Amino acid sequence: MRAYRIPQLTGIQSLTQVEEAVPKPAHRQILVKVIATSLNFRDLALVSGGYRGPIAPNVVPLSDGAGEVIEVGPGVQRFKVGDRVASCFFQRWFGGLADANSPGSALGGPIDGMLREYAVLEEEGAVAIPAHLSYEEAATLPCAAVTAWHAMVEHAHLRAGQSVLVQGTGGVSIFALQFARMMGVRVIATSSSEDKLARAKALGASDGINYRSHEAWDEAALACTGGRGVDQVVEVGGSDTFSRSLKAIRPNGFISMIGVLTRNAEINPMAILAKRANVQGISVGSTQMFEAMNAAISVNGLKPIIDRVFSFDEAKEAFAYLQSAAHFGKVVIKV
Amino acid sequence: MRAYRIPQLTGIQSLTQVEEAVPKPAHRQILVKVIATSLNFRDLALVSGGYRGPIAPNVVPLSDGAGEVIEVGPGVQRFKVGDRVASCFFQRWFGGLADANSPGSALGGPIDGMLREYAVLEEEGAVAIPAHLSYEEAATLPCAAVTAWHAMVEHAHLRAGQSVLVQGTGGVSIFALQFARMMGVRVIATSSSEDKLARAKALGASDGINYRSHEAWDEAALACTGGRGVDQVVEVGGSDTFSRSLKAIRPNGFISMIGVLTRNAEINPMAILAKRANVQGISVGSTQMFEAMNAAISVNGLKPIIDRVFSFDEAKEAFAYLQSAAHFGKVVIKV
Amino acid sequence: MRAYRIPQLTGIQSLTQVEEAVPKPAHRQILVKVIATSLNFRDLALVSGGYRGPIAPNVVPLSDGAGEVIEVGPGVQRFKVGDRVASCFFQRWFGGLADANSPGSALGGPIDGMLREYAVLEEEGAVAIPAHLSYEEAATLPCAAVTAWHAMVEHAHLRAGQSVLVQGTGGVSIFALQFARMMGVRVIATSSSEDKLARAKALGASDGINYRSHEAWDEAALACTGGRGVDQVVEVGGSDTFSRSLKAIRPNGFISMIGVLTRNAEINPMAILAKRANVQGISVGSTQMFEAMNAAISVNGLKPIIDRVFSFDEAKEAFAYLQSAAHFGKVVIKV
Amino acid sequence: MRAYRIPQLTGIQSLTQVEEAVPKPAHRQILVKVIATSLNFRDLALVSGGYRGPIAPNVVPLSDGAGEVIEVGPGVQRFKVGDRVASCFFQRWFGGLADANSPGSALGGPIDGMLREYAVLEEEGAVAIPAHLSYEEAATLPCAAVTAWHAMVEHAHLRAGQSVLVQGTGGVSIFALQFARMMGVRVIATSSSEDKLARAKALGASDGINYRSHEAWDEAALACTGGRGVDQVVEVGGSDTFSRSLKAIRPNGFISMIGVLTRNAEINPMAILAKRANVQGISVGSTQMFEAMNAAISVNGLKPIIDRVFSFDEAKEAFAYLQSAAHFGKVVIKV
Repeated sequence: MRAYRIPQLTGIQSLTQVEEAVPKPAHRQILVKVIATSLNFRDLALVSGGYRGPIAPNVVPLSDGAGEVIEVGPGVQRFKVGDRVASCFFQRWFGGLADANSPGSALGGPIDGMLREYAVLEEEGAVAIPAHLSYEEAATLPCAAVTAWHAMVEHAHLRAGQSVLVQGTGGVSIFALQFARMMGVRVIATSSSEDKLARAKALGASDGINYRSHEAWDEAALACTGGRGVDQVVEVGGSDTFSRSLKAIRPNGFISMIGVLTRNAEINPMAILAKRANVQGISVGSTQMFEAMNAAISVNGLKPIIDRVFSFDEAKEAFAYLQSAAHFGKVVIKV
Repeated sequence: MRAYRIPQLTGIQSLTQVEEAVPKPAHRQILVKVIATSLNFRDLALVSGGYRGPIAPNVVPLSDGAGEVIEVGPGVQRFKVGDRVASCFFQRWFGGLADANSPGSALGGPIDGMLREYAVLEEEGAVAIPAHLSYEEAATLPCAAVTAWHAMVEHAHLRAGQSVLVQGTGGVSIFALQFARMMGVRVIATSSSEDKLARAKALGASDGINYRSHEAWDEAALACTGGRGVDQVVEVGGSDTFSRSLKAIRPNGFISMIGVLTRNAEINPMAILAKRANVQGISVGSTQMFEAMNAAISVNGLKPIIDRVFSFDEAKEAFAYLQSAAHFGKVVIKV
Repeated sequence: MRAYRIPQLTGIQSLTQVEEAVPKPAHRQILVKVIATSLNFRDLALVSGGYRGPIAPNVVPLSDGAGEVIEVGPGVQRFKVGDRVASCFFQRWFGGLADANSPGSALGGPIDGMLREYAVLEEEGAVAIPAHLSYEEAATLPCAAVTAWHAMVEHAHLRAGQSVLVQGTGGVSIFALQFARMMGVRVIATSSSEDKLARAKALGASDGINYRSHEAWDEAALACTGGRGVDQVVEVGGSDTFSRSLKAIRPNGFISMIGVLTRNAEINPMAILAKRANVQGISVGSTQMFEAMNAAISVNGLKPIIDRVFSFDEAKEAFAYLQSAAHFGKVVIKV
Repeated sequence: MRAYRIPQLTGIQSLTQVEEAVPKPAHRQILVKVIATSLNFRDLALVSGGYRGPIAPNVVPLSDGAGEVIEVGPGVQRFKVGDRVASCFFQRWFGGLADANSPGSALGGPIDGMLREYAVLEEEGAVAIPAHLSYEEAATLPCAAVTAWHAMVEHAHLRAGQSVLVQGTGGVSIFALQFARMMGVRVIATSSSEDKLARAKALGASDGINYRSHEAWDEAALACTGGRGVDQVVEVGGSDTFSRSLKAIRPNGFISMIGVLTRNAEINPMAILAKRANVQGISVGSTQMFEAMNAAISVNGLKPIIDRVFSFDEAKEAFAYLQSAAHFGKVVIKV
């Protein structure tokens, strides 16, 4: 089978196509024929040497993939041959709390990922995909969508009538926007592009704030909510945006920290106390969160927003396109 | 001012119109000019002598009303003259847990209710009403809508992608249907009328089960969910329907007990254990639940379903109409 | 190796000692040398044909065991050879919610259990045991202790200052008593024996109610709490005691249904509504609950109460002793 | 009656004894004869002009007091004349979420506090005090103890078997230590004084870290927990200690931000993400939290640690003593 590996972490050019044997599933493992994968900023950071977590030598990249179960190991109960599945970011975080072994089980980092024709997954590290989604659509879900779901449903416990601010139009933010509308939550979106704000509004955002023309986007967010502040910020901006996010939320509001776009700004932690804010670092989510999210996607017929689909041979072009930040929604590689 | 009182609890004819002085608000109380009220089965049970809770002698009935603040007592911070408000079922259950004084503070039972031209409310026993609702619409919310919200949001913690079964087309059930759709939850509705099932589907129910033609509506509900069972039943039927509700839910599912339509059937409590069900008795909700619900109604532009509006002088006709069970949604009395 | 199997479910005499091969651990499985096991009423019901769940043909009984890891399969991360572990009741309920495969993974019922010299467990179906406990003590935990923890910590969310009523002095009730005292919760115990009540008080119960001399033990419980009612009943009595439990709890209190001692009494479910009670059926718990409980046992130096220890060859005597209901705490079989 | 007021916020010398009329309770208010009060750092900051919240002109200081109800206004249901009560920090935060009016209802800041012979309180702004506590002991609870309870029970949901790190030996930290032991939670205490560490261990701390001799107290805390990290830090140190607190907690651990001792250090918020920490700003708590805490204090016979009691005329000396930071536990002023 064909696969991509990364012998050195020196940039997109490090991506190297290799030929290798199809792996075999053991007890409670499944073999998946990968049909589509998708990219996240983490993958870009990893190939460029900027990812801070553990990385296996010469790793197969990408946490996100979808395909068909073509063989099941002994003891498998969750799947049968022919099932349509997506990979879970963590192979060892089924439900409840992440444990000490969860971080080391992340696909496309500490262990081999999905950018290959066949992959063995733990049966508890895969989920059935919604019937109305194509493999390309389902491949967009494992990292960005589960992260947004975790932040909104498990961290902030958002409920109908509350409000969320989403930053920009990357994968997590667009899923957060779509999930919010699905659950009756109001969305305020920020972007540096009027065109992207218009698209966010077309997806249901009640307000769009151009942070290029309104640098003080936190004040604009307060104004949108009658001075009260939003219930949650899905914080993908990193340290630069954090201070404004704290100002944009209501007293006792939630900041879900996800992004690593900027790293060097500092804050005075007393600002968290002053707002009686709840700040939580979020790292994707469990298999059970993924399943709950898929039920929501199914019941509501939600469709992920795919910006562009690349072929397996165009993998480097796909990474470069993500790096350009021109996208609105997800970037997919067909296998 | 004009008011209705109930000197004896001997049926609808006991409703007696009286003339009395407009009350004065004390510290942290508000005086409300009542513009609309609505009816619940509890009111019918009360006037007929079938209500089991405490009842003040010669009480003014009805928990549900909406109107305009025309005077505020000293220390009032939540409202000002001119504000549009609705009454809270409990005058003493602001937030958190109900306490020992909450049950005795229910309007239209242990204390005088809303079927009068002016009413004094605790400031923490009233809520601002959504801007897009008329007083008639807002008057439908205090008992039935808050009960449905409490059951779905606070008890079952329903989230997008889950499913709820609503029984019949009374006030609580229709609100439950509307709230579920607002939050991305699937709805299975039961009724004895094909016409009402059609209306429930028009409001977004995915499935309708006619319990007259399908007496085993629990089996039909299981079939709708691929044999798995619904996540929650909003149980308004009383003891007769309980056993089927237990069969209709998934393992670890929720039954929110609300209704008192039938009283005499018995169940074996081992059936709760066998299903590992969670069964909770629900009695309306707190002022903070009402406010959270109103935010959801506002953000989503939800409109309560009013079946029919009666005049103040037609109060007895309104009670009789509710008794006939011909309604779909709420019955309102304008003041 | 030696093992007990149950060729027919016709009573304690059905227990049959057999000789068979030591099993091999596969991917993510461990091989445990079993050193001690313990009994629960479920085991007695099973051997007698009164257990309602699925049962494998000629099954090895007992969910509860503790021993030493003597071999690990490929991919095992949670344990190494030499670790001291206990079995989890469910081999497939690691954390979060039980799923469709959990019930079928219960040891000593749908799959072979612990009454044998060696057992293969899923690595996520075993837990490390507290350092201060012997294997005999640790073997008492998997079913009864986890059930009590689940009921008190996960269902009723008991916190210091609240109160729990425990029924009798079987395994679950004694663990509930000990856990309650460990977390600052008040305990009211019932028993038909003054001697057992005295022992319960010695373990920290503030009150003991003899339900033989006070048949209306619910009224005695109300009196103990100044008329308010207890926060939780850990209901092991089955359907006979349920009605009194509903009377003994405070409004909005919790009944955790566990026991199957009696099956035929019926209740009117309206009583649940009247008390606004929360009733939950509980079936043991997850591996993560077991680990959290073990941390509590370790930090607080808690010791399980063992009534009596039998040898492997005395297994039938152990079952008979449990049947006699003379015990206070747990019955253990050394392997 | 006698009272202290603060005409100018220029230091302890601003405290001015005045003579004024006894106030009258209105609807749902009670008149309390104040018998004891206690001090918090907030009171010291306020008199010195360093408090950042709203302050009424010429305010009566102190949030904390206990006394006897000597008159009840109309409509009061929670108390009767003769009841022993303590003040609630917020007069308008009964239960559930704090709302927009809660911060402005804090005693001894935006409204007059407890350093006077008689005070009118909202009935929902007072709680009954545990029977085994003196007025002096009960007067220590409203701010520091409720804050510790809120942090541990409501924010971190600490349960038996988990661990908490408490910083220093001020009021909040000592209550946190006592509450933790009461609920089966392990305590690691830090202090600059070996003597105070010995006293903390006498109260049940398993470990004491002298942050003068071990500047890297976070590493010492990790070592105490086998490298895993503590479940919660009750962070009273302000911005200087925050970075080490983040290192001392386990992944997904909790930091409850309370203190304002230092204000100027900054952190990189990415550190919160890296630890997947949950950081919450805490500001005292609700009346219902106070009541739940009092139940725990009663059931477990817990006694607050009073360092020293001053007379009403020695109020300035009491403030000066608190400023010296020589105390271990609470500083009380008898009225």
